[in-house]
Amino acid sequence: MRREPVVRMAELEIDPHMLEAYRVLLTEEIEASVALEDGVISLSAVSIRDNPNRIRILEVYADQQAYEAHLQTPHFLKYKTATAGMVTSLTLIEVDPIAMRAKP
Amino acid sequence: MRREPVVRMAELEIDPHMLEAYRVLLTEEIEASVALEDGVISLSAVSIRDNPNRIRILEVYADQQAYEAHLQTPHFLKYKTATAGMVTSLTLIEVDPIAMRAKP
Repeated sequence: MRREPVVRMAELEIDPHMLEAYRVLLTEEIEASVALEDGVISLSAVSIRDNPNRIRILEVYADQQAYEAHLQTPHFLKYKTATAGMVTSLTLIEVDPIAMRAKP
Repeated sequence: MRREPVVRMAELEIDPHMLEAYRVLLTEEIEASVALEDGVISLSAVSIRDNPNRIRILEVYADQQAYEAHLQTPHFLKYKTATAGMVTSLTLIEVDPIAMRAKP
């Protein structure tokens, strides 16, 4: 079991007709995950300005166990089920942190 | 002048022979920017696991003025000059935040 942080980037494309609903569900899921799960360090979701249907999420978890626990939470499962028909493309990119700094 | 946060994603490709030197300079620049500039909210640099020469940086500034001030700081100018010969490709992607949450 890796104990170092797990960092991922998700690249999504959303059905344009579902974009507003998707954004609401994603925001709810991000707020719940960071508020309720000790092992979720940060979740940063952005849309590409020239094509707002394309979304990227930078995800930072304390370790592999925290990431796997996240996948079983009610708020994540709700998001996953509710958005299944809205996401037309999903690519998960494994990344390694070089330097991540934020204001306290 | 936009007063909302300015968020960008940079996608870089680094000369493999220069990668270690580049990572050191990037880390120094990120640490200095977040420590010294009130308007730099967060800088998150990661490398793609399958191709560590490919780097992505998620950048969050308080507003447009903070972003423009950042570009004139000694630490940014040092980074820009020192890494100019190391970066073989640089794409700046304008993005808009959807939800960004982190542990305090």
